[in-house]
Amino acid sequence: MKHRDCNVNTARQENARVIVHERVNGSEGLCLHTTVNKLPKAGEVSVRIQAAGLNHRDLFIMKERSDLHQSVVLGSDGAGIVASVGEGIEHIQVGDEVIIHPTLNWVHTNEIPETLTILGYPSEGTFAEYVVVPVTCIEKKPAYLTWEEAGVLPLAALTAYRALFTRGQLKSGEHVLITGIGGGVATYAFMMAKAAGAKVTVTSRSQEKRLRALEVGADHVLASDCDWGESLHGEPVNLIIDSIGPAVFTQFLQVLAPGGRVVQFGRSSGDKVEISLSTLFRNQYSILATSMGSAEEFREMLQFVERHRIRPVIDQIYPLEQAVQAFKRMEAGVQFGNIGLKM
Amino acid sequence: MKHRDCNVNTARQENARVIVHERVNGSEGLCLHTTVNKLPKAGEVSVRIQAAGLNHRDLFIMKERSDLHQSVVLGSDGAGIVASVGEGIEHIQVGDEVIIHPTLNWVHTNEIPETLTILGYPSEGTFAEYVVVPVTCIEKKPAYLTWEEAGVLPLAALTAYRALFTRGQLKSGEHVLITGIGGGVATYAFMMAKAAGAKVTVTSRSQEKRLRALEVGADHVLASDCDWGESLHGEPVNLIIDSIGPAVFTQFLQVLAPGGRVVQFGRSSGDKVEISLSTLFRNQYSILATSMGSAEEFREMLQFVERHRIRPVIDQIYPLEQAVQAFKRMEAGVQFGNIGLKM
Repeated sequence: MKHRDCNVNTARQENARVIVHERVNGSEGLCLHTTVNKLPKAGEVSVRIQAAGLNHRDLFIMKERSDLHQSVVLGSDGAGIVASVGEGIEHIQVGDEVIIHPTLNWVHTNEIPETLTILGYPSEGTFAEYVVVPVTCIEKKPAYLTWEEAGVLPLAALTAYRALFTRGQLKSGEHVLITGIGGGVATYAFMMAKAAGAKVTVTSRSQEKRLRALEVGADHVLASDCDWGESLHGEPVNLIIDSIGPAVFTQFLQVLAPGGRVVQFGRSSGDKVEISLSTLFRNQYSILATSMGSAEEFREMLQFVERHRIRPVIDQIYPLEQAVQAFKRMEAGVQFGNIGLKM
Repeated sequence: MKHRDCNVNTARQENARVIVHERVNGSEGLCLHTTVNKLPKAGEVSVRIQAAGLNHRDLFIMKERSDLHQSVVLGSDGAGIVASVGEGIEHIQVGDEVIIHPTLNWVHTNEIPETLTILGYPSEGTFAEYVVVPVTCIEKKPAYLTWEEAGVLPLAALTAYRALFTRGQLKSGEHVLITGIGGGVATYAFMMAKAAGAKVTVTSRSQEKRLRALEVGADHVLASDCDWGESLHGEPVNLIIDSIGPAVFTQFLQVLAPGGRVVQFGRSSGDKVEISLSTLFRNQYSILATSMGSAEEFREMLQFVERHRIRPVIDQIYPLEQAVQAFKRMEAGVQFGNIGLKM
């Protein structure tokens, strides 16, 4: 990722700073621009962002999108203050403190859209001083969270909530195994599972992250490459939350209890896994894939984190203009918890 | 399968005829014996079987069990009249007409045992004039069913019920695809899905079975080897009930709607399938493996079939002493519906 010098528009009162991903002169990277501040249309609100969070999704888009002739304002997570309100909106006022639900076209949990539309690409995202979103995508910011905490919460906490509860049907007293602790979703899943009364085992390649997880209350920690079945001493696992995939998948079937569930929301080690159907149905296993969450689940998640006073683990917060440094840290994979931007 | 001449014990009043699977002089097969009729212990009842049903499970046991020095009375399905009642049982009387729940050690749906114990192996099964079972494994026979219908119902209908409803969470108006129509479980799943208000597509390699399925109300039929996605003209499927596995698995991902579920209860075409995790989670798919069902689900299933007046499709009924012929028909795979034995 390169930070290039860019043409910055002349600042004026109605302008706002944004971070864009763009290609200029054959090389692409992140760039600080100043653009004209858009006004909300009917049914929309403009939010003055106070803090925003980075997600792996942003990295994937930068690496994989093919429409590089277009400048894109990335960013799915954010929290801020309502700056202006479009026509037809009565329950939201200028000055309200809000947190943004990033899954723009998914309202009811059971009505999964064909393709999810996520704030930040192709629509303009939260790495900006102002963002315009549908009013259905904002909720009251939980008062106990700081701006930084609220800003990094949405997408990862929503994904973790849906994975654990809607998909994984976690119950108190069950044993959950969460792979790749330190990542955003895994870290929320860890805190939520503990809050729900589960026993939680986490895995990581990094000894530092494993020790950190023990400090914050993990019941067991496992190295990614040890024999999990042996290390767990026959304490079978009811639910696995995974985004690693093939590198660890064969271990899952060694540790799951009858009726065990694997909830899959990523595949950082590759895409293809081979499964034995007889192993699956002899043990009544479930493989449940999940991605993001609905507006309904976003509201449930906010109630859950507020009830349990769950606070995001903040790894580091950078000023908006240091977005490149923030992404370098995420790419290096050394963080424990969330990386954010402050406007 | 061979039908050998066997030593038949001298008949006496307290004796009963049974079909056993055994090895004699180096060759194994089914054999009609007469044995001493066992009395129920405390908490057990003896049922005079009127009719029993064949399952693929019986075939698998005959082919795969290694303890051939033991004679085994096979048979998981049956219905009959209570002949004697063990101590401590008050709500069941001699003469009650009952149907047998074959999953002996699974009572509550959410408490899946480590290993299921199924009537018929290793415990003595229903291919007999009398069987002794725990009182927790009998339910009142639905009055609208004939003995033959009740006798062939339990295991396949239970498996279909759990697959469709507990695991597959079928809702009225959804589109279900059931592979391998004609098999016992598939045929119950077909009738139950129609009764629940679903649109039902079925598949078979056999044109005869496809035509038969259309006659009995299938909305679509598909040959196993055609392009399902094309044949369904973009009518996406919400739920797939499958026991074939690898030979058709890749077709599933062509036809499933976002959030689609695959319920897997067998693997007649092989054991291993390769899955793409990104395809799974981009579409929020679920792979749900299932086997048999609990006593709770057995009761729910009986209420469901009674409410909807679902009658098993009887392929053919043989007298007990023609068990070998009955199994030959099942092995040939030409049946449509259930094969039973009548005592």
